Amino acid sequence: MKHFITLNDLPNFHKTVDLAKSLKENPYSQEALGKRKTLGLLFFNPSLRTRLSTQKAAQLLGFSTIVMNFSNEAWALEFEDGTQMRGIRSEHIKEAAAVVSQYCDMVAIRAFASLVNKENDEAEIVLKRFAKYAKIPVINMESATGHPLQALADALTLKEHKTKYRPKVVLTWAPHPKALPHAVANSFSKMMSFQEADYFISNPEGYDLDKRITKNIPVIHNQSEALQNADFVYAKNWCSYERYGQILRTDNEWIITKEKMSLTKNAKFMHCLPIRRNIVASDDVLDNSNSLVIEQANNRTFAAQAVLKILLDHA
Amino acid sequence: MKHFITLNDLPNFHKTVDLAKSLKENPYSQEALGKRKTLGLLFFNPSLRTRLSTQKAAQLLGFSTIVMNFSNEAWALEFEDGTQMRGIRSEHIKEAAAVVSQYCDMVAIRAFASLVNKENDEAEIVLKRFAKYAKIPVINMESATGHPLQALADALTLKEHKTKYRPKVVLTWAPHPKALPHAVANSFSKMMSFQEADYFISNPEGYDLDKRITKNIPVIHNQSEALQNADFVYAKNWCSYERYGQILRTDNEWIITKEKMSLTKNAKFMHCLPIRRNIVASDDVLDNSNSLVIEQANNRTFAAQAVLKILLDHA
Amino acid sequence: MKHFITLNDLPNFHKTVDLAKSLKENPYSQEALGKRKTLGLLFFNPSLRTRLSTQKAAQLLGFSTIVMNFSNEAWALEFEDGTQMRGIRSEHIKEAAAVVSQYCDMVAIRAFASLVNKENDEAEIVLKRFAKYAKIPVINMESATGHPLQALADALTLKEHKTKYRPKVVLTWAPHPKALPHAVANSFSKMMSFQEADYFISNPEGYDLDKRITKNIPVIHNQSEALQNADFVYAKNWCSYERYGQILRTDNEWIITKEKMSLTKNAKFMHCLPIRRNIVASDDVLDNSNSLVIEQANNRTFAAQAVLKILLDHA
Repeated sequence: MKHFITLNDLPNFHKTVDLAKSLKENPYSQEALGKRKTLGLLFFNPSLRTRLSTQKAAQLLGFSTIVMNFSNEAWALEFEDGTQMRGIRSEHIKEAAAVVSQYCDMVAIRAFASLVNKENDEAEIVLKRFAKYAKIPVINMESATGHPLQALADALTLKEHKTKYRPKVVLTWAPHPKALPHAVANSFSKMMSFQEADYFISNPEGYDLDKRITKNIPVIHNQSEALQNADFVYAKNWCSYERYGQILRTDNEWIITKEKMSLTKNAKFMHCLPIRRNIVASDDVLDNSNSLVIEQANNRTFAAQAVLKILLDHA
Repeated sequence: MKHFITLNDLPNFHKTVDLAKSLKENPYSQEALGKRKTLGLLFFNPSLRTRLSTQKAAQLLGFSTIVMNFSNEAWALEFEDGTQMRGIRSEHIKEAAAVVSQYCDMVAIRAFASLVNKENDEAEIVLKRFAKYAKIPVINMESATGHPLQALADALTLKEHKTKYRPKVVLTWAPHPKALPHAVANSFSKMMSFQEADYFISNPEGYDLDKRITKNIPVIHNQSEALQNADFVYAKNWCSYERYGQILRTDNEWIITKEKMSLTKNAKFMHCLPIRRNIVASDDVLDNSNSLVIEQANNRTFAAQAVLKILLDHA
Repeated sequence: MKHFITLNDLPNFHKTVDLAKSLKENPYSQEALGKRKTLGLLFFNPSLRTRLSTQKAAQLLGFSTIVMNFSNEAWALEFEDGTQMRGIRSEHIKEAAAVVSQYCDMVAIRAFASLVNKENDEAEIVLKRFAKYAKIPVINMESATGHPLQALADALTLKEHKTKYRPKVVLTWAPHPKALPHAVANSFSKMMSFQEADYFISNPEGYDLDKRITKNIPVIHNQSEALQNADFVYAKNWCSYERYGQILRTDNEWIITKEKMSLTKNAKFMHCLPIRRNIVASDDVLDNSNSLVIEQANNRTFAAQAVLKILLDHA
């Protein structure tokens, strides 16, 4: 594995989940592995779980870490080739990626979707240009179209909590006052393609995800029908993909409540966090013992640790 | 000790000051104690001394540290229960505290008073909700109503510099162009209740602190009278408590000058810093060898180190 | 060496470059030297290379590091003596420098020129006041008038790439949409005074640097003439020194292009970064194998490591 941009970069998905699980059982077992190595963490967007869990994962492996908030600590970056850099962007990604490669042994990057320019978002300009010009492994800490570290943590959470060989898993859209990216839903769906499961996506009309990613996953536009007999309910908002970046509904009909959870087979509830309470899901769902959201966040550490270890092993 | 929110949480105040003193004499004596432990430092407000001294204290004990500025690096937090999170706050304290507990072994938090809503400030919503939902020890790096790490450093400074069994100590209000919180004055007063001392508070009419905290401490509204024969003068501004958050006086009558210090028994001068020169106290007071302000700041490291060590010992 | 404010502070320039070179060959050779030491890095301005390379250098020597962005994390500082601090500046440099000295063993500071007040800039108020009131070594990470860590890295780069005893080196002004400081040009010129080289500065009329720094270095106002037979071309923009802070030309005549490089003796191209592509220099110059800009950035680590080591050795 040269970079970790998507789940497809992993040499072996299931072995990676197993590795994360074994690191969780013994997190300091590899604490000398990253000695004399530096992980740079570059943030173009806010972060709580990703910021803390990725640092923690690196420290568990003995890495030094250097954190930078690009938005206010460094120079605005230009990603386009051939432009006359006359505007506010004072450094080109070519130089930035090359110099970061000299101070760090790996670099992890968070760069959200703009939700304005679909083509640019889908080109994953920030992450892919970094990967192109960096001489070190680049790790995706959520990019415009994917959040593979979250999906890997979710895979570990599913593994720990599933009680049957082939559970029913439902990813359901939920309301939100802001337009949110598709990254988590995309990566979760891709991750589910590695799983033995009956996997469904449920969302209102107009909110179908990119078909190139969801492929033949059944999409059910009736939420109650989708939730029937589910073993896992993963709630997440995203804005419209078709009418890119738009919010098509502002009602609260799709909120996950205790009543809706009663349609399921006593399903576990999942969400990547942060979650807006009583908008995406009600307090009684989040405060219920069936909620796995805190454990999902916990597993972020071991997902990141597994990815860092694999990159070290391949270095 | 489960959390360190106020001085009352300490199992033994005097032993804590003694511990701080012995750590100051041999700061690396416990450098293996925090090995494999991570201290998270979360800032909702600016910080110089607290930021540096708490990190330094943690590093002296062998901790890894992770620093976050919540205001611009993470998600705006909701602290109220049961609200529909439709506004700018995208993460609830319940989740934030729970997930931070998974990446860190302890968490230190700075969250100033709003000085707008007295009830909310007195409820110490940020710190107490963190403590409620965290599964790890929470350390107060200055909250709405208290600054116990400062008071502990001040106690060590008093111990080092007092030359008689029962010194006269005066906390005097001083002018300031901005409305400042009561936290330092509150915690200093509480700390003085553990001391053998003649302790007085001096402030203008309308600036009396919360009586539930100052209890029977004599309050003298004539500054010159209060300063007579003092051995220690602690200057600090705070806004009106009664007319909550207001500035009642803009004159400079209460500034601490060399002339006023001459009323004392060659008193030592104390202030928690930052201090506005020639507003709170004049240059000749601050640059005088009787000023302890730099040593107070130095002692912040060992106060924090003592608190971290006690929390580790109780873990 | 007490502080590292300018290249003149180095006990021996050439031995320092040699030390940087040997550290580059074996960067972990001194990894115990900074054990139990803390380097504070204080930023008043944006930074990428300096931020990362100085942290990296410190970590290579075993230092703990604490990074602070003064602009948004701490209190606004007052640098003038005797003022009544009634405005937005709530902490005086006297206190700030003294307290930082207690938490750190060394402090590195970045504080750019204002380009508004020439006298204040030339007085190097931020850095010199820090050095005056600090009790620990102060390291210049680019000040109003100098950037000696960059110049030291440039010296190492020249040493590695020169193929003759006395190369021709040309520092040429280049266009830029913003008014930039003279720090890099000043320090590069000072550094060249230690070199065996034919050194020329080329800039448009009105852009001559401070004569007290450039002294008898020949200034050629015709760029093409200056570039003839050059072995090294160092491009850099700066604003007018004479009409302080002003931009006198907005044309692109002085951009470094492949055509202009063809006037040279197959010269190596240098720039301190960040560089605005196709404004300061064209893509074909930067992407050419003769460009040393990435290696210059790499050498920043070893320049900083050498300076830190010398300060440790003198402590």
